Amino acid sequence: MIITVSREFGSGGREVGKRLADKLNLTYIDREIVTTIANENNMQEDVVEETLNQGIIPQIPLHYGRSFYYYQNLPNPQSHLMSRQQSLLKEFADRGNCIIVGRAADVILEDYDPFRIFVYADLSSKLERCRRLGPEEEALSDHDLERKMKRIDSDRARYYSLYGSNAWGDKSNYDLCINTSQFEIRDLVPIIADYIRQWYMVHK
Amino acid sequence: MIITVSREFGSGGREVGKRLADKLNLTYIDREIVTTIANENNMQEDVVEETLNQGIIPQIPLHYGRSFYYYQNLPNPQSHLMSRQQSLLKEFADRGNCIIVGRAADVILEDYDPFRIFVYADLSSKLERCRRLGPEEEALSDHDLERKMKRIDSDRARYYSLYGSNAWGDKSNYDLCINTSQFEIRDLVPIIADYIRQWYMVHK
Repeated sequence: MIITVSREFGSGGREVGKRLADKLNLTYIDREIVTTIANENNMQEDVVEETLNQGIIPQIPLHYGRSFYYYQNLPNPQSHLMSRQQSLLKEFADRGNCIIVGRAADVILEDYDPFRIFVYADLSSKLERCRRLGPEEEALSDHDLERKMKRIDSDRARYYSLYGSNAWGDKSNYDLCINTSQFEIRDLVPIIADYIRQWYMVHK
Repeated sequence: MIITVSREFGSGGREVGKRLADKLNLTYIDREIVTTIANENNMQEDVVEETLNQGIIPQIPLHYGRSFYYYQNLPNPQSHLMSRQQSLLKEFADRGNCIIVGRAADVILEDYDPFRIFVYADLSSKLERCRRLGPEEEALSDHDLERKMKRIDSDRARYYSLYGSNAWGDKSNYDLCINTSQFEIRDLVPIIADYIRQWYMVHK
């Protein structure tokens, strides 16, 4: 069972991922990737994270058909980190039973046929969730918080576009798109977990 | 419990609706609307259906804020049928425990806070499903069948745009978007039914 979770900023996607991992007894993959890459390259973890999240577009396309090898030979440091993240994701997927939030994992792990979730919510729910959970966000005005959300989602979309031919958030990329508006994630997760269990039972 | 199902042509949305109605013991609303309108206007049912499906755009906007009354005074026959469909949908919703496929019911019944599903699938699954279930489609080439699908979906989108401010199929309109690719609807429906039951249990 391999699950990928993509999500709009503020929709509770990370919490969905963590709680699903607990519920379904899967390895939640997140920090390990950054830590490994940071150690290998003698870089600070937050620099690695930042570089990976920015989704900088290199000069040449990253995907030729479905293979990515071409790009691994580039000297560009972002490309190097992204390429390593990609190979690490596959190493984790090879071990099986894991859940990965973000990182275009649904496309990178396409050959593993993961269950692909997209989590989203309406603007007011996302604002409310951010205010409640993010100490950094408390000081921001609604307007600034909304701008921050848009910026982060647009970074995610850009990053995703390096790997996928469809747009980030386009429902056709996913098996299930879940609107978390007005919900506590802890209430929704058991329902999603049941859905996934059943899905795997009937999945050919 | 009021459920609306929107769907791409060929994705199995109608079957989802019918089977969910059985599973959750809800009234499946479909033909009654057309029959009632046909009787009231002394028209043939297929003409009513065709007129309703075409999504013809009248000269003036149909929605001012959330009220639709303005448009009921128009002499245009399409407008008259659409307006009557709208009031019938509300009559059914007033009785509760029903499921409605298509007809922009998710927007028209917004005030009833329905559970809104969107059903979709990848192209090859939709082609395969159409061939299997639609005797009319058997004679069409893949290319012609694909064109037919696009036309029907674009009619649906146009119809929807008369009521909603968001685009048809935009996931933010729905509570759950379900990819039926490679699945038998009969296998998926019990899972969806569980999701809905649980959703109603935690829904405030």
